[in-house]
Amino acid sequence: MAMKGVIASAVRTLASSGSSASSTTFTRHLHASAGSKKIVGVFYKANEYAELNPNFLGCEERALGIKDWLESQGHKYIVTDDKDGPDCELEKHIPDLHVLISTPFHPAYVTAERIKKAKNLQLLLTAGIGSDHIDLKAAAAAGLTVAEVTGSNVVSVAEDELMRILILVRNFVPGYTQIVNGEWKVAGIAHRAYDLEGKTVGTVGAGRIGKLLLQRLKPFNCHLLYHDRFKIDPELEQQIGAKFEEDLDAMLPKCDVIVINTPLTEKTRGLFDKERIAKCKKGVLIVNNARGAIMDTQAVVDASSSGHIAGYSGDVWNPQPAPKDHPWRYMPNHAMTPHISGTTIDGQIRYAAGVKDMLDRYFKGEDFPAQNYIVKDGKIASQYQ
Amino acid sequence: MAMKGVIASAVRTLASSGSSASSTTFTRHLHASAGSKKIVGVFYKANEYAELNPNFLGCEERALGIKDWLESQGHKYIVTDDKDGPDCELEKHIPDLHVLISTPFHPAYVTAERIKKAKNLQLLLTAGIGSDHIDLKAAAAAGLTVAEVTGSNVVSVAEDELMRILILVRNFVPGYTQIVNGEWKVAGIAHRAYDLEGKTVGTVGAGRIGKLLLQRLKPFNCHLLYHDRFKIDPELEQQIGAKFEEDLDAMLPKCDVIVINTPLTEKTRGLFDKERIAKCKKGVLIVNNARGAIMDTQAVVDASSSGHIAGYSGDVWNPQPAPKDHPWRYMPNHAMTPHISGTTIDGQIRYAAGVKDMLDRYFKGEDFPAQNYIVKDGKIASQYQ
Repeated sequence: MAMKGVIASAVRTLASSGSSASSTTFTRHLHASAGSKKIVGVFYKANEYAELNPNFLGCEERALGIKDWLESQGHKYIVTDDKDGPDCELEKHIPDLHVLISTPFHPAYVTAERIKKAKNLQLLLTAGIGSDHIDLKAAAAAGLTVAEVTGSNVVSVAEDELMRILILVRNFVPGYTQIVNGEWKVAGIAHRAYDLEGKTVGTVGAGRIGKLLLQRLKPFNCHLLYHDRFKIDPELEQQIGAKFEEDLDAMLPKCDVIVINTPLTEKTRGLFDKERIAKCKKGVLIVNNARGAIMDTQAVVDASSSGHIAGYSGDVWNPQPAPKDHPWRYMPNHAMTPHISGTTIDGQIRYAAGVKDMLDRYFKGEDFPAQNYIVKDGKIASQYQ
Repeated sequence: MAMKGVIASAVRTLASSGSSASSTTFTRHLHASAGSKKIVGVFYKANEYAELNPNFLGCEERALGIKDWLESQGHKYIVTDDKDGPDCELEKHIPDLHVLISTPFHPAYVTAERIKKAKNLQLLLTAGIGSDHIDLKAAAAAGLTVAEVTGSNVVSVAEDELMRILILVRNFVPGYTQIVNGEWKVAGIAHRAYDLEGKTVGTVGAGRIGKLLLQRLKPFNCHLLYHDRFKIDPELEQQIGAKFEEDLDAMLPKCDVIVINTPLTEKTRGLFDKERIAKCKKGVLIVNNARGAIMDTQAVVDASSSGHIAGYSGDVWNPQPAPKDHPWRYMPNHAMTPHISGTTIDGQIRYAAGVKDMLDRYFKGEDFPAQNYIVKDGKIASQYQ
């Protein structure tokens, strides 16, 4: 695949985010402190894959491509993938780091305990979207700033969701498995393969990603439903042809396919438990690229085993990395992957540029693009409440 | 998955094809012969899967659901999946059958030799789309009628193509494989995973399926190109935003993704040989749900091994079923399946209804819907020339 157009697109993203906030004067105490900062980045390790693609910016080895830039300004930049347990590399730097950069793909869990230990910590940046690996209440109470690169990979995730819908509806995985196993049994696939056309697809959450998914679903001639706290702008709603469902439990029994597009919050943790899954149509297909903890792990396994859920696909798990014995690896009719949907090469270029932009503003004492803030001045952004 | 809407859709398909030709008086000799007919249907066997879905009409066990209907009118209906070699079940019935129903998914190869032996044969019906398993020249010379259920599974195939594009662009398969193998290596997937947005997608052929694919690609914000003998209707072209490429070899180097949407004919057999694949961009992704023989088998293997082709996905092979040692099963970066894209349950309901409709017209001496004819009155339809 060529990268034509991707760099240009990342630059456009930056340019537009820059113009939206560049005139604001920065006032908070934490950005005002001058001098050398200690910045720690936690990324997944690429090993032998690091050298295969010069745009592979999101791995530990490339560390967003900002090491030389940071060091040339006198800052210290430590990168690691070793993030869990009392003896890990991250833990060593907690007491004196100023900035922690983390990702949802290989999450550094920032607990209240770690925040308490981090006496110099000022800024938590998520390279990507989704900051639920951070204890946001504790961060707010400690006066920290939490920000993510809003919009950096919403297209990446929406595309991936549509792929997963089709993979489940059309029963791709058993077909692929037959081929690599030397088999050919069309019936073993076809007896539960369908067209997406004419089916009812409902999204739980219609924020940035949910809307992009609905727009991409439009030409498939489905019945589109969405549940959210807010109605979509009437003009866009009309253009997409999706119907608002105020009551989640009233929407679920109508759906052949359910897509989860809501952040993980105290309200959505465990939202799909045994009782709520039972409200879905028998044979429902579920796609979840949002967060694993929105589902009750065992309830998904049980419903997949009974056939109430006919297929489950997603890239999010609880916890991450998923342990070898995570039951979702072995339940029937799944199409699971590691957490990859938001870390395409295109997404990496955009969120690396977004993190660099925010660090630059931080050093200069300037505000970030408003939509990037997750915790600011002790307040948590509305989508995480 | 629920079947709501599917039966209604199949009925609509029938109703519309009925209205388009019902007033025509039938004149050809072959339909005029009255009395009991011997009809043979060749379908894939479902075995243990047959009972799992009442709408699984396309398997040998259900045989399009027309057995009782045929027998109640005094016709004989033999069904088998045993189609190859001199001692197969099909061969026994060649000398005295009147009608042969076959499918592209488990193709009964109707050679000139078989046509010569089939002294009573009048009508060859393809349950689905794609009649290249029939020697059309020999059929035309023998005065046979060949017809398929045009339109019955074009949506099914187009949806499946978009799924395969996303699977390749986003590098789904290694992610799934990691999960079932107990692994978690995001970098092993991410270093070659991209967004579809901004990439150039070209379709070789923009007939019914190609157009449906382009329409579904529209919201993905790609650069869309198409090569065909004919330009798309200007209004539709404008709506889809696809650019016509008169010269195939000029289009290929522009494409990040190439989709094959042309029938197999003498002109397209082996179209993608070593030289033509070399004209594609290094790292090209190819999707082929059209026919396996459009590709040079070994050239695809070699280019996939060298990395010139970065991913290949399709459901068509040469021959079918693919033997255990077919090299496409084992080449790198493939996402192959058995021939399934056109035999979804929704597709089966539509092509079963279409075959029944044509048999009914045949018995009554009525013409078929005009678009269904592949060979009629010694002439081969233009798309197969």
